[in-house]
Amino acid sequence: MITVALAKGALLKDSVTRLAQAGLDFSAVLDPTNRLLMVPSACGRAKALLVRNGDVPVYVAYGQAQLGIVGFDVLSEKQMPVANLVDLGFCGCRMSVAVKATSGYRSAVELPPHCRVASKFTSCARQFFEDIDLPVELVHLTGSVELGPLTGIAEAIVDLVATGRTLRENGLIEIDQLFYSTARLIAHPLSLRLDNGRLQEIIEIMQSSKDSSAQ
Amino acid sequence: MITVALAKGALLKDSVTRLAQAGLDFSAVLDPTNRLLMVPSACGRAKALLVRNGDVPVYVAYGQAQLGIVGFDVLSEKQMPVANLVDLGFCGCRMSVAVKATSGYRSAVELPPHCRVASKFTSCARQFFEDIDLPVELVHLTGSVELGPLTGIAEAIVDLVATGRTLRENGLIEIDQLFYSTARLIAHPLSLRLDNGRLQEIIEIMQSSKDSSAQ
Repeated sequence: MITVALAKGALLKDSVTRLAQAGLDFSAVLDPTNRLLMVPSACGRAKALLVRNGDVPVYVAYGQAQLGIVGFDVLSEKQMPVANLVDLGFCGCRMSVAVKATSGYRSAVELPPHCRVASKFTSCARQFFEDIDLPVELVHLTGSVELGPLTGIAEAIVDLVATGRTLRENGLIEIDQLFYSTARLIAHPLSLRLDNGRLQEIIEIMQSSKDSSAQ
Repeated sequence: MITVALAKGALLKDSVTRLAQAGLDFSAVLDPTNRLLMVPSACGRAKALLVRNGDVPVYVAYGQAQLGIVGFDVLSEKQMPVANLVDLGFCGCRMSVAVKATSGYRSAVELPPHCRVASKFTSCARQFFEDIDLPVELVHLTGSVELGPLTGIAEAIVDLVATGRTLRENGLIEIDQLFYSTARLIAHPLSLRLDNGRLQEIIEIMQSSKDSSAQ
């Protein structure tokens, strides 16, 4: 039986739609009364594991799920050994550096060396500041990162930006972009190698439905 | 002005009650329509920072808040340089090792060496298994840790247990306890040293209200 790790939250609805195109009907997970974390597909040939965003690559890396759908942001942060197969294109957002609009900084290289940068994505942030050769002190926060510059715990933040509304409401502006993140179909490498064709079929349909939706 | 870091969620209501006894009225944070993350006290002499559980010790360690209220579980996991001042006694729960009820293991030392243990609290778990000299592979999950043994990603979990209902519903049993966790009043060490008496006054009232409630 194929197990697919799905992230609760913003990615869920589109993930279910795209898997349905590949013949896996997990619409039961969208039922607001559903409390199950392991949900069989309508056909009974597959099941979904409903987990937190950050846990999708973990379940796939350990082979408890053969497939998973997760944001590129989480994938970059977690650095788990999974195959990144298809850019599904939905849930697009930017991983950006932001500062107080009143700060005067207009790009990341202008930040003072050894300043503090708050983020939920400290691995991504570390890589970015190493690449631009700017030493910074990273402060790991788990939520409401936009509070960082307001409280003074950090001069800058690295965070996901979709519409930019949260930044604006808190008097912050984007000054640099690390990457653009979208939902990705990932797989357990060993399961791909041992696949008898069923995984490949799903992957190909999701690849082609992506290509046709991009036209 | 005194800033107090408060954890959103289960700790919030009791935290507000206890601070009110010490003269800081933050009841505005309990208003369900409140969207502010920085909330002044009714008297205007203090403000609350409303942050995620795990971020309370971070804001206090960096001195953005002089005081904070957070669970001993988070404090043990984060290992930040803060002063752990008063055991406030509320929100009690156990940090426990649990396995499938059908597994046959009845204490942590019976677990097979190099087995996998899933947890949100991997620092606490690492310390515990080092103390009992059992090498294990820790799998960091961010939510629904009770799925670990059910999916097979881990033989055991280390997680917070309050009533035990989640464990029972998932066919798991507690086999060992790391520690008992309660809410703690913490402070920024340097702020304590530079205190002109106002922090000390709050701390003493919260200490004595704890002693009287324990009688």
